[in-house]
Amino acid sequence: MKLIYSFREGAANMKDLLGGKGANLAEMTKLSLPVPQGFTITTETCNLFLKNGDYPEDFGDQLREKLHELEDASGKQLGSIGNPLLVSVRSGARVSMPGMMDTVLNLGLNDETVKGLISQTEDERFCYDAYRRFVQMFGDVVLGVDHDKFEEALESLKEKRGVKLDTELKAEDLKELVSTFKKIISAETGGEFPEQPALQLKLAIEAVFKSWNNKRARTYRNLNGIPHDIGTAVNIQSMVFGNMGETSGTGVAFTRCPSTGAKIFYGEYLMNAQGEDVVAGIRTPEPIDELEKRMPEIYGQLFEIKNILEQHYKDMQDLEFTIEKGKLFILQTRNGKRTARSAVRISVAMVAEGLITKEEALMRINPEVLNQLLHPSIDPKAPLKVLTRGLPASPGAATGKAVFTPDDAVQMVEDGEKAILVRKETSPEDIHGMHAAEGILTSTGGNTSHAAVVCRGMGKPCVAGASGVIVNGKAKKFIVGDLTIKEGDLITLNGTTGELILGEVPMVEPKLEDEFGHLMQWADEIRKLHIRTNADTPEDAEVARHFGAEGIGLCRTEHMFFEDDRIPLMREMIISKDNPQARKRALSKLLPVQRKDFIAIFEAMNGFPVTIRLLDPPLHEFLPDPSDTKKTAMLAGELGMTYEEVRDIIENLHEVNPMLGHRGCRLGITYPEIYEMQVRAILEAGIECHNKGINVKPEIEVPLVSDVEELKTVKKMISKVADELGEEIKFKYKVGTMVELPRACLTADKIAKEAEFLSFGTNDLTQTTYGLSRDDGGKFLQLYMENGIMPEDPTVTIDRDGVGALMRTCVSLARKEKENIEIGICGEHGGDPRSVEFCHEIGLDYVSCSPYRVPIARLAAAQAVIKERRNIAELP
Amino acid sequence: MKLIYSFREGAANMKDLLGGKGANLAEMTKLSLPVPQGFTITTETCNLFLKNGDYPEDFGDQLREKLHELEDASGKQLGSIGNPLLVSVRSGARVSMPGMMDTVLNLGLNDETVKGLISQTEDERFCYDAYRRFVQMFGDVVLGVDHDKFEEALESLKEKRGVKLDTELKAEDLKELVSTFKKIISAETGGEFPEQPALQLKLAIEAVFKSWNNKRARTYRNLNGIPHDIGTAVNIQSMVFGNMGETSGTGVAFTRCPSTGAKIFYGEYLMNAQGEDVVAGIRTPEPIDELEKRMPEIYGQLFEIKNILEQHYKDMQDLEFTIEKGKLFILQTRNGKRTARSAVRISVAMVAEGLITKEEALMRINPEVLNQLLHPSIDPKAPLKVLTRGLPASPGAATGKAVFTPDDAVQMVEDGEKAILVRKETSPEDIHGMHAAEGILTSTGGNTSHAAVVCRGMGKPCVAGASGVIVNGKAKKFIVGDLTIKEGDLITLNGTTGELILGEVPMVEPKLEDEFGHLMQWADEIRKLHIRTNADTPEDAEVARHFGAEGIGLCRTEHMFFEDDRIPLMREMIISKDNPQARKRALSKLLPVQRKDFIAIFEAMNGFPVTIRLLDPPLHEFLPDPSDTKKTAMLAGELGMTYEEVRDIIENLHEVNPMLGHRGCRLGITYPEIYEMQVRAILEAGIECHNKGINVKPEIEVPLVSDVEELKTVKKMISKVADELGEEIKFKYKVGTMVELPRACLTADKIAKEAEFLSFGTNDLTQTTYGLSRDDGGKFLQLYMENGIMPEDPTVTIDRDGVGALMRTCVSLARKEKENIEIGICGEHGGDPRSVEFCHEIGLDYVSCSPYRVPIARLAAAQAVIKERRNIAELP
Repeated sequence: MKLIYSFREGAANMKDLLGGKGANLAEMTKLSLPVPQGFTITTETCNLFLKNGDYPEDFGDQLREKLHELEDASGKQLGSIGNPLLVSVRSGARVSMPGMMDTVLNLGLNDETVKGLISQTEDERFCYDAYRRFVQMFGDVVLGVDHDKFEEALESLKEKRGVKLDTELKAEDLKELVSTFKKIISAETGGEFPEQPALQLKLAIEAVFKSWNNKRARTYRNLNGIPHDIGTAVNIQSMVFGNMGETSGTGVAFTRCPSTGAKIFYGEYLMNAQGEDVVAGIRTPEPIDELEKRMPEIYGQLFEIKNILEQHYKDMQDLEFTIEKGKLFILQTRNGKRTARSAVRISVAMVAEGLITKEEALMRINPEVLNQLLHPSIDPKAPLKVLTRGLPASPGAATGKAVFTPDDAVQMVEDGEKAILVRKETSPEDIHGMHAAEGILTSTGGNTSHAAVVCRGMGKPCVAGASGVIVNGKAKKFIVGDLTIKEGDLITLNGTTGELILGEVPMVEPKLEDEFGHLMQWADEIRKLHIRTNADTPEDAEVARHFGAEGIGLCRTEHMFFEDDRIPLMREMIISKDNPQARKRALSKLLPVQRKDFIAIFEAMNGFPVTIRLLDPPLHEFLPDPSDTKKTAMLAGELGMTYEEVRDIIENLHEVNPMLGHRGCRLGITYPEIYEMQVRAILEAGIECHNKGINVKPEIEVPLVSDVEELKTVKKMISKVADELGEEIKFKYKVGTMVELPRACLTADKIAKEAEFLSFGTNDLTQTTYGLSRDDGGKFLQLYMENGIMPEDPTVTIDRDGVGALMRTCVSLARKEKENIEIGICGEHGGDPRSVEFCHEIGLDYVSCSPYRVPIARLAAAQAVIKERRNIAELP
Repeated sequence: MKLIYSFREGAANMKDLLGGKGANLAEMTKLSLPVPQGFTITTETCNLFLKNGDYPEDFGDQLREKLHELEDASGKQLGSIGNPLLVSVRSGARVSMPGMMDTVLNLGLNDETVKGLISQTEDERFCYDAYRRFVQMFGDVVLGVDHDKFEEALESLKEKRGVKLDTELKAEDLKELVSTFKKIISAETGGEFPEQPALQLKLAIEAVFKSWNNKRARTYRNLNGIPHDIGTAVNIQSMVFGNMGETSGTGVAFTRCPSTGAKIFYGEYLMNAQGEDVVAGIRTPEPIDELEKRMPEIYGQLFEIKNILEQHYKDMQDLEFTIEKGKLFILQTRNGKRTARSAVRISVAMVAEGLITKEEALMRINPEVLNQLLHPSIDPKAPLKVLTRGLPASPGAATGKAVFTPDDAVQMVEDGEKAILVRKETSPEDIHGMHAAEGILTSTGGNTSHAAVVCRGMGKPCVAGASGVIVNGKAKKFIVGDLTIKEGDLITLNGTTGELILGEVPMVEPKLEDEFGHLMQWADEIRKLHIRTNADTPEDAEVARHFGAEGIGLCRTEHMFFEDDRIPLMREMIISKDNPQARKRALSKLLPVQRKDFIAIFEAMNGFPVTIRLLDPPLHEFLPDPSDTKKTAMLAGELGMTYEEVRDIIENLHEVNPMLGHRGCRLGITYPEIYEMQVRAILEAGIECHNKGINVKPEIEVPLVSDVEELKTVKKMISKVADELGEEIKFKYKVGTMVELPRACLTADKIAKEAEFLSFGTNDLTQTTYGLSRDDGGKFLQLYMENGIMPEDPTVTIDRDGVGALMRTCVSLARKEKENIEIGICGEHGGDPRSVEFCHEIGLDYVSCSPYRVPIARLAAAQAVIKERRNIAELP
C-alpha cells in the first residue's frame, strides 16, 4: 500500500487521498511552477494511524525512501551539519479547515544543524530566530506545552534586555531563549527536547495526525457538516525563507478581488518576513502592485503564474508565495474564499469569458451566502467586541438600543431611536414590539423558535438561544459575562453569525447588481421545483414577489389575529367559548377584517396560488398569561366580565403539551364557527377579487390532520359555506392539508383520496418524529451537536433518515393514490439549500420559504437539478 | 338480488346477511322447533336503503311475495277483518346490540282489524290493550312522538277512573285510549295515524332501518368496536301472545346458569304477560322451576328444546319463549351473555363433556371479562353497614360517589372521582353513564333487566331491583330506611351478594377457581408471546408472578424516587444542577436506596428477566410547582438556600412541552452522573443477588432514543461503570432501548446494531405519531369518538394504520440487522387484547402489562395464535 506520494506523483484530482493542499502542490509541480519540493503522507495513513494508534508496518521504509528522494533533489540532508535540510510539516485535509490543525516549521534544527545553517546563510540572528521559533512551535504543538510559558519567557527576556520588539533581540538573546525554551519543555514534560531530526519528524507527523481529533477541529467539522472519518494528509516540504534579508519576502494574492469580484490582481506582501507575519497582522503589508516597482521581474513571473493558475483551475485562486533571496516560490494555491458579491460577479464574469458554463457558475455559489446580498452586514473591516454567541437564527445585522418589552420597543421607535428587543423568548403577544425593533435577541429557543421564524419572515436579524445571556426583564437589564447591559445601551446583532456585539458597528448595505439577476435567471431556467413563499401580510407577499416567489405556500391566518385591532375581537370570541351566540357575534366582526387581508394578498399574488392555512395554534396563545393579573383584569373589564370568570376560562385552556394539544383542525372541528368564518372570508375575498379581474387561486389548507376523517369533516364545513355562496364563486379553489404528523405520512394514501394538495409542515413533523420540542430542545441540542450525537440540527436541515423517510413514504403513498396530486413543503426547511435538494430528489412540486430566502431556494433548486444530472452522468 | 328470506330459507351461518336473530330463527325452523313463522329482510337491503334513502327497486314485489307466503302458511291476512295477521317488526344485526334499536309489536291492527281479533279471541280487553300498545309503540318508534305524551294520557285516564294499575282499566277505557293516542299523534305530527296495515309495515321497516343510525346505537357501536357499515336486518314475524289469560305466559331461560356457570336450567317466567313485562322488571317473575309444577308438559317440552339447542349450538343458549293458550313457541335463541366466572366454568365444562375443543374453549372467553375474576371483592372480615339488599345482578364490588344521571356520572369520572350510578331502572339511553360508573344500583328490575345484562357484559358490579331504595333523580338523592344519600356521598355495591353498603369498604384479592387455572394452562400451551409485567415495586412483581408473569418488561425507576424518604434526596440532586460536586453527593445517598429496590425486585423475579428503564421524566416533575410558594419556601429551607434561588431554578426547568423536552436519555447524557448511579445500583444489586444464589437477568433500558448515537453515548457510560465493577459481575445483562419515537422506528436497523433488545413504548409512540398529548386530548377526543372521526381510542388499542405501520417497519429493519434481537412492548397497549393480537402478528417476543392484566394478556396471546391458525386454514 502506497502511503506517501512525492509532489511529482500526485495531481489535483487526488484530493481525497492527498488533501487539498497536497493535491494542489502536486498539480503545481506538474505545471512546472516553482514549488519547494516535498511529499505528502496520505489521508488513508492518517485513518489507519488513528484507528490502530500506530503507523502501518512499512510506513518507516516509505518515509525514509521519500526523504532520501527529497534530500537527493535538494542536495541537503536532514540532520546534516554541513548542509541541513529543513522542512515544514503541515496538515491538509480534503476540505479546507483553516487554522484548525497543527503545523510545524523549520523542522530539522538542533544545536548542531543550526551551526550548518549559520555557515550557509551567514546570518546568525536569522538562524537562532528560526531555531527558537521551531523549539517553541514543536514544544507547543508536538509536546503539548502551554504556549503561554514560551511567551512569558520571551517577554521576561525582552524586559531584562529593556527592549520592546522581538526584532530588537540579538542572536545571543535568541540562542539563550532556545536554551530557556528547552528547559521549559523539560520541566513541563519531564523529558528532553528531541535533538534528532528523524525523531522530530516522526513526532511531528504523529502530532498532526492526532490534531485531526482535537476539540476545535471536531467542533469545526460539526459546524460545517464535514465528516469525522476522512482524516488529514500531512505535507512535508523543504523550507524556504522570506525573512532572509531585503531580497526576500512573502505574500498572499488573489487572482481577482475576493471582496468585489473585480478582475484585478489583488494581494499583499511583506519584504523580509515569514508568512505568519502577514497573517498575524503585526506589520502592515504592502499592496501587491508595489511589488511591481520593487522587483519587476519577480512580479512579472508571479503575474504569469496567477494567470496560469486561474486558467488551469478555472476559478479565482488564493496563492501564497515566498521570495527567498530573489527567487520566487509558490507555497500554496487554492480556490479563494470570497464575499457573496464577489462570488456572484466572478462566476458570471467567468461564464462571459468562456471559462466555465452556466451550470458551473451556479454550482460555484453557496446559496446561503446570498444572505449577504439581501441583508445589511457588518463591515468586515470593523473591530468588534463580541460579547457572546447564540444561534444565527435570522441573517443580517442591526444596531440599536436594548429594550426589554415590546411596548418599550414601540415607544423607543416612536421616540425616533432604533431598538433591539431582548427577551428570554418571544411569543405572539410580542409581535408589535418585534415589528418595531431592528432585531431580536433571545436567551432560549432554537432555530425554529417563535423569534427565529418571525424574524426570518420579516427579514430582520435574530440571535436566538444565546445561553450566555441572562435576561432580567423586570429589572430591564441583561447580564453577559461580567457585563450588565441596561435599557438604552447600544448593542449590535449579527444574525448571520449569531454574534452579540457591544456598541454600534458600521454596516454595509446590500446592493443587488445585474450579475445577481443573471444568476437567478439561469437558476430559473434549470430548476424544476417551484418556489413559493411563506407570507402572512400583503407587504410580505410584495417582498417575496420582488425576490421571485411564484405564489404563497403558507399564509398563516392566525398572525392576522394578533394585530392590535383584531386581538380584542379574537379574545371576545375565545372567552365566549360556551356561548355559540356570543362566539358567532365576535366572529362576524372578524369576518370583514380577514376578508380585507385576503383581498390584499390575492391582489399581490395575482395569477399565483395562495395557500391559506386555517387557524392552527391553541386558543390560549391569544390570551394573556393568567399569572399576569393586570392584563387579565383589563381583559375582564373590556368584556364586561369578572376577573375570576376570565381567569378561570384562561386557566381552563391551559395545556400540558400545547404542541400536541387542542389545535389545528381539532379546533376547527370542535368550534366549527371559526373555520366557517375563515372559509367564508377566503371565498368572499376571492369573489371580490375575481370580479375586479384578479386571477385568484386560493388553496384552503387544513392543519394538523392525523386521520383522513378529520379532513373529511372539515371539507364538509367548507362545502357548506361554498354552497351558501353558490354561483358567486366563479374561480377554482383547492382544498388540501398540511402534512405535519407522522401518522399523516403513514396514511397519506387515504388522505390523498380527499385532498387536492399536500404540504409538508416539516417544523412540526420534525418535532413529532424526534419527540423534540423546538422550545425546549435548547437545553441539550447544543451539547448533542458539540459531541457529534446529532451532527446537524434537524430543525435546520431535513433529517433524511427519519423525517425524510416519512416524507418519502408520504409522497409514494399519495402519488400511488392520486398520481398528479400537488405536494409541497412550507416548513422552515423550504429555505434550507440541502433540504431543497432533498425536496427535489423526492419529487415535490414546490418549496415555500420566507421572502428573504426565496433567491436562496431558487439557486438551491437549480443546483439540485445539476447535481442530479451529474450523478446520472456518473452512473456506469 | 334476493332481499328477503323466509325463515325456511335461512341458516345459522347466514348471520352477516340475516343478522343474529334472523339466522337463529331460521336455524330453529330447520330444527323443526316451534317458531312463529316469518321472514327476514337482509342487512344488505338496510345498507342500500340508508345509502340511497329509498328501497331497492323490486323490494316491494319481494315483500308482497313473502307476505303472501306467510299469510298462506298462517291462514291469516294482513288487514283482513275476518282473520287478521298481526306481526312484530324487529331489528337484528350481525352482532347483538340489546335494546339499541327499535321494535314494533302487534302491527296490523286498526279500527277494523281489531274487531276481527276480538271475534277470534273473544277478549275485547286484551284486543284493545294490544291495539293501544301498538298505537303507542308505533307513535313513539315510527312517528317520533315523545313517549311521555302517551304515558301522561294513560296516567290521566287512570286518575279519572280512580284506579292505580293499568290492568284495572276496562276494554272501553283502552278503546278510548286508542282514540286519545291517535289524537296525540295528529297534534304532534300534523298527520293521521296510518290505518292501512301495508303502510304501517312499510313505515315500520323504514323506522327500524333508520334506527341503525340513532345516537344510542352509534354510541353503543363505538363503545363496542362494532363497525357502522354492517347494517341491521329486519325480522317480520307472526305475533304470539303470552298475555291471553292464565294458560298463556312468557319467559326467558338459560341452558346453564349465566352467573355461576353451573349446569342447571336457569330462567324466569311470568304467566299472562308479554315479554316486555319480564324485561322491564315491573312485575317480579317466578323461577323457571315453578313452571314444572304449573305446566309440566310445557316444561318438559321446553327442557327438551333447551337440550337440543345447547347440543346444536355447542354453547350456553339464552332463549325467549311464549306460551299462547297452552302452546309453546320459541321466539329467539342466542348465545347467552354470562359472567366471567360462568364463561370460564362453562367453557371448561364443555371441553370435559366433549362438546368443544380446548381451542374453542379459549376462543369463547373475551379476555376483558377476566377482569371480573381478578378484581378485589369486599373483605369478608370488614364491618359493614348494609343499608339494603337487592338482586345480585352482576358480580364484583365497587365503591364510589352516588350520582343520579348518566351525564353526572361522566362528569364525575372526568373530575377524577369514582361514581356509582343510581337509577330507578336503566335504559339504553343511559349507556354512556353506565360505562363511566364503577357500578350500577337500580330500585326496580330483575336479573335479566337492562341494567343486569349490560353490567354483566361490562364486567361491572350491579345491584338490581333494590326495592328498599327510593330514588329521587331530580333532587339527586335517594332514601333508604331513614337515611338520605345525596349526590357525592360514598356508597359501596356488592354485586355478588346484592348488598348496598354505606361508605367505603376494604376489598380483598379474588380467589381463582380451578377452571381458571385450566384455562390459563391451555392458553400457555398455545401462545407464542411471552407475557411480562410492568412493575416498579417488589409488591407489584409478586402479584404479577402470581398471575403468571414471566418477567418484568418495564420497571420505571423514577417511581422509586417519588417515595417520601427519597424525594428530598432527588430534589437535592436536581437543585444542585450546576454543582457536580453537590449533585454527586446527593446521588451517592440515592445509590443504596435504589440498590435495595433492585435487590428486592430481582429476588421476586428470580430466574426471569427484569427490564429496568433508566430515569425518564423531566426533572421538574420532582419539584414543587413554582406557583406553590409555600412548598418552594419549604424546599429552600431544607436545602439551606434562598427562596429566590430555588424558585429561579424551578422556573428555569419549566418546559413548554415537557413531553417533547429534556427527558429520557437526553437527561442521562447531559447529567451523566444520574445514569451512572442508576447503572451502578442495578449492577451492584445484581452482584449481591447473584452471590446469594439468585438467578438475575437485568436488562438495562435506555429511554427516548431518537438516534443510535444517543444509545452509543449511554452505552459508554454503562461500560465505564461495568468496567469499574469488573470481575465482580458474574451474571449476564443486556443493554437495549425503548422504542417510543417515530424516528427510532424509522432507524431501527442502526439502533439494532447497538441494542440487545428493543421494547416498544407505545404510549409515547402513539402520542408522537398522532401529535396527540394524552393529557390534553380529552378536550376533543370525546367528540371525535362520538362522531366516528376516531372509531376507537388509539391510547387504548394500537392504531394499526399509523403506529402499527411504524412498529412493523421497526421490527422488519431491526430483524434484518440482527435476526434474533429481542423485541417486546411495554406500553399500556400490552394488556389490551386486540393490541396483543397485533403484537403476535408482527412477531414480537413478549408483551408487558400491569399485573392485573397478565391473565388477560395470556388468554389474548393464545387467541391470537388460534385466530392465525384459523386464518391459515381458511386460505385457499
